[in-house]
Amino acid sequence: MFFEGSEKKLEIRVTADVPSLRSLGRPFWQAIVACANAEILSQLSNPQCDAYLLSESSLFVWDDRFVMLTCGTTTLANAALSFISQFGSDKVAFACYQRKNEYLSHLQCSSFDEDLFRLREKLSGKAYRIGHLDSHHHYIFCTDSCCDGVLDDTTSELLMYHISGKTADYLRCNQQSTEGIRALLELDSLLPGFDFDDFLFEPFGYSVNGVCDDRYMTIHITPQENSSYVSFETNLDLGQYPQPVFARLLQILNPGSWDVIGFNAGRNTRGYPDHLCLGSCTLESESGYTIAFSHYQQICHEVLIPEQM
Amino acid sequence: MFFEGSEKKLEIRVTADVPSLRSLGRPFWQAIVACANAEILSQLSNPQCDAYLLSESSLFVWDDRFVMLTCGTTTLANAALSFISQFGSDKVAFACYQRKNEYLSHLQCSSFDEDLFRLREKLSGKAYRIGHLDSHHHYIFCTDSCCDGVLDDTTSELLMYHISGKTADYLRCNQQSTEGIRALLELDSLLPGFDFDDFLFEPFGYSVNGVCDDRYMTIHITPQENSSYVSFETNLDLGQYPQPVFARLLQILNPGSWDVIGFNAGRNTRGYPDHLCLGSCTLESESGYTIAFSHYQQICHEVLIPEQM
Repeated sequence: MFFEGSEKKLEIRVTADVPSLRSLGRPFWQAIVACANAEILSQLSNPQCDAYLLSESSLFVWDDRFVMLTCGTTTLANAALSFISQFGSDKVAFACYQRKNEYLSHLQCSSFDEDLFRLREKLSGKAYRIGHLDSHHHYIFCTDSCCDGVLDDTTSELLMYHISGKTADYLRCNQQSTEGIRALLELDSLLPGFDFDDFLFEPFGYSVNGVCDDRYMTIHITPQENSSYVSFETNLDLGQYPQPVFARLLQILNPGSWDVIGFNAGRNTRGYPDHLCLGSCTLESESGYTIAFSHYQQICHEVLIPEQM
Repeated sequence: MFFEGSEKKLEIRVTADVPSLRSLGRPFWQAIVACANAEILSQLSNPQCDAYLLSESSLFVWDDRFVMLTCGTTTLANAALSFISQFGSDKVAFACYQRKNEYLSHLQCSSFDEDLFRLREKLSGKAYRIGHLDSHHHYIFCTDSCCDGVLDDTTSELLMYHISGKTADYLRCNQQSTEGIRALLELDSLLPGFDFDDFLFEPFGYSVNGVCDDRYMTIHITPQENSSYVSFETNLDLGQYPQPVFARLLQILNPGSWDVIGFNAGRNTRGYPDHLCLGSCTLESESGYTIAFSHYQQICHEVLIPEQM
């Protein structure tokens, strides 16, 4: 029943002389997604963005950039390399590749080191591991080149591990519905104005994409006991947003530990469950944007249940 | 500079009709150790026990049992299988195989699952993972069969991660001596009556074995920044021992986090640095011995240093 919920993430922004990425159409993106060993399940579009729900996570395409997240044992670096080889490295204005903290990294098709080696054959950039190897840690590679869009943009990621409580129980039961999950997550009130596209996996697992003008949000839920994981990500500027999105999701999903990664985003822990911030750091890229990472743990002692093998 | 300090551990007790294991002599044990891809560096003996210091950790041999610990990317399961195939499964009165929390499990030659599969072709027993996959966790396999020696025996393991402070700095400097390290660890006062045999590795790393009658102790130090690890293990009954061995080692080495594993051993956290016990459990085997695991974290926020790759 193990499934690696934690995602790899790719963002690529192209130079101004590249035609609209949206005009490439669904067959092009189907082929890119296939390079990662995933497939497109459904599509939600508005005048600024195409949001594809994938068999393993999500793809968002704007005219000048795309963001792709894939979980499980997908090969997202292959998708990155396929895109770059079709357009040429000189058309990449900015690229960023991340791997979130994995439960079982030895089951992955490649390590971050191996992905990095291949990406560096096409793109020059800096890579970091943030966080200790025996605790939550994240890998990130960003090109040295940057562009205005990156510096203006804000992205906030909330990665939750070991969810528990009423919502977690519902997510693990066998009588769920997308409406039921959406209601428990309070999506309509937390993110007013967003259009949503969601999918329920068998035997469980839930994904939702949302778009509102050029803003996106996505949630992916792997509810499995002992290795549960829920990610939320958006390019909304949550510091200026009227709803306490992270705090409310933490209250609803009650994770034992969680990480927050922000790109040009402020830190605000108001409303978080009682916690210890075990570690954090802020990384200023040479090109001027700021990456912040924080690893939080609920302050409580847990009686561990040995897992028989 | 990465080295996996955390150990795999094997204990095998043989049935009463097997001749003394000590009488097998050093060439026999050299061959067993070689199966794990390690070698014997030196030997310390007293009337009850032969203590071998290995290129990767330690081997202790008594007449009726042996305990072997190996770190790095050694293949301890191979050593176990070689021993069992030479004597026969029916001569194994009790066996226990553990893998401690690893920093980079994907660099290991095998997973615990794979080791387990092979061990179960020779021995029947129960296996558990204790602790969450995204936090410190340990694997343990024990045979269903048990024997008096196990139930009478106490073993205490202290596994320390991310050491810091004066002793850690000394362990990382390039002008160490075994005498200097022994003095900083206060071995003579903490463990009076023990004979010691220690070794300094290049460029750093330190191992020491100690014996006193049928009691043993061993310490292995991997001081590398970002992946430091120090283990202490003994079959002394620390609950009845006059010295606060664990508390003092924690004060001296100041680890960011540590795990305690006890076999028929009490829990006593007096003198530990300020900490949160993130999780613990007690596992009662059917054959009557008790395994306890606790994962501790110092209560402090750490400013993480991104590691450039």
